[in-house]
Amino acid sequence: MELFYSNDIGGDLCRLDAEESAHCVRVMRHRAGDQIHVIDGDGTLLTCRLIADNPKQAEAAILERTPRWNTHPYRLTIGCCPTKNNERFEWFVEKATEVGVDVIVPLIGERSERKVYKADRARRIALSATKQSLKARIPEITEPVSVRSFVARAPQDDNCHSERSEESLRLIAYCFEDANHPRRSIKEALEGYAGTDITVLIGPEGDFSPEEARLALNNGYIPVHLGPSRLRTETAALTAVQAVYLAYSL
Amino acid sequence: MELFYSNDIGGDLCRLDAEESAHCVRVMRHRAGDQIHVIDGDGTLLTCRLIADNPKQAEAAILERTPRWNTHPYRLTIGCCPTKNNERFEWFVEKATEVGVDVIVPLIGERSERKVYKADRARRIALSATKQSLKARIPEITEPVSVRSFVARAPQDDNCHSERSEESLRLIAYCFEDANHPRRSIKEALEGYAGTDITVLIGPEGDFSPEEARLALNNGYIPVHLGPSRLRTETAALTAVQAVYLAYSL
Repeated sequence: MELFYSNDIGGDLCRLDAEESAHCVRVMRHRAGDQIHVIDGDGTLLTCRLIADNPKQAEAAILERTPRWNTHPYRLTIGCCPTKNNERFEWFVEKATEVGVDVIVPLIGERSERKVYKADRARRIALSATKQSLKARIPEITEPVSVRSFVARAPQDDNCHSERSEESLRLIAYCFEDANHPRRSIKEALEGYAGTDITVLIGPEGDFSPEEARLALNNGYIPVHLGPSRLRTETAALTAVQAVYLAYSL
Repeated sequence: MELFYSNDIGGDLCRLDAEESAHCVRVMRHRAGDQIHVIDGDGTLLTCRLIADNPKQAEAAILERTPRWNTHPYRLTIGCCPTKNNERFEWFVEKATEVGVDVIVPLIGERSERKVYKADRARRIALSATKQSLKARIPEITEPVSVRSFVARAPQDDNCHSERSEESLRLIAYCFEDANHPRRSIKEALEGYAGTDITVLIGPEGDFSPEEARLALNNGYIPVHLGPSRLRTETAALTAVQAVYLAYSL
């Protein structure tokens, strides 16, 4: 099954942009009359009939809408400090999208080696991984934000979906020991939570600073560890996604 | 903490090969008399005093041995068909090593796009990831073997450690539905198992053939799925590693 993406949907018609049109008409050789599958990037699969096989702007009539298609039963926000090596963070974006994530927030920590992050490439990777893994909702990749300002936000601002009312679970994974705030395992924290709205923060190569961790704890974050292995930043972030995915997938 | 690897250990001395010696003496500028940490690749950390700072063959006296250093409480063999794109499989090797795996068997399936696999590069990646993640045991990466001959092996031949006597858990993850052999989730399969010796098989991009799956089931493998998401081969393999890691890490 091949998916196309449209951000131009109106009434019973959808239009593909130049890149998607070229892929649909030139590469896949679809012609007017063919049935194609289009995602709206927000969770809905559109079963369509191609009506204009223009390789610069293809157009299709929507036959059927399947909302919440191939979705996961949780809402997960990962705040993660982009790695010095950009490829490693992009790899995380691809894998997290395949497994199931909703919002990725590039965090800039006090100890971040990367203080500037451009999200454009990661957004293209997320779109491609969404289509490849047969999902209809593209994870949102926000603009970068500092750890301090992110942890100070109210829970309902963690992501763009404001209809949520349940108490969210906010976790921060760091590596140092703090006798006053013993960390539990992420698995244990997830098992003790009955809701579906989870935020996990993952620090940079040099970890969060104690001050950032303190600020997070003051704002309701629960300190967790990711098990006994020493993981790279991007591996830690994916381990958090997998822990949530596995916790909800039985 | 910086780790060096030695495969030349005798009595109370260990020698580093040319590459490790150059790294120790030229890059890290260690001199005779310095304390260094060496792993034997088989689980033991050696605390040593450098006695010969020869950048081609450094030599160190062993002061202390710490067996089973930073190990994990399970023995995991992953049989996985190498991906067409070699980088993707090598990425899996790196990440699985960080998280915790014991043996990786490159499998050649009927539907494998890659029928030939050279393990040398992956072994170097496993060594590097072992040192980077502060472990002392390097996962074994075997020579490639066909799915058919691998599943026909007796459980005790799954990996090189023959002292095991407990009943091992053998799982095969495939994507097709078979009404006669409903798949349970990998999490459920792990929860129902009290031992520590696990083998998981992951098929190629085109999945195992029904014949390969039948052969595995006839040889005691339990069919599992990895949750609702459609995962690439290397992501599926890492998800299996994470499922085991998380199951044993509370």
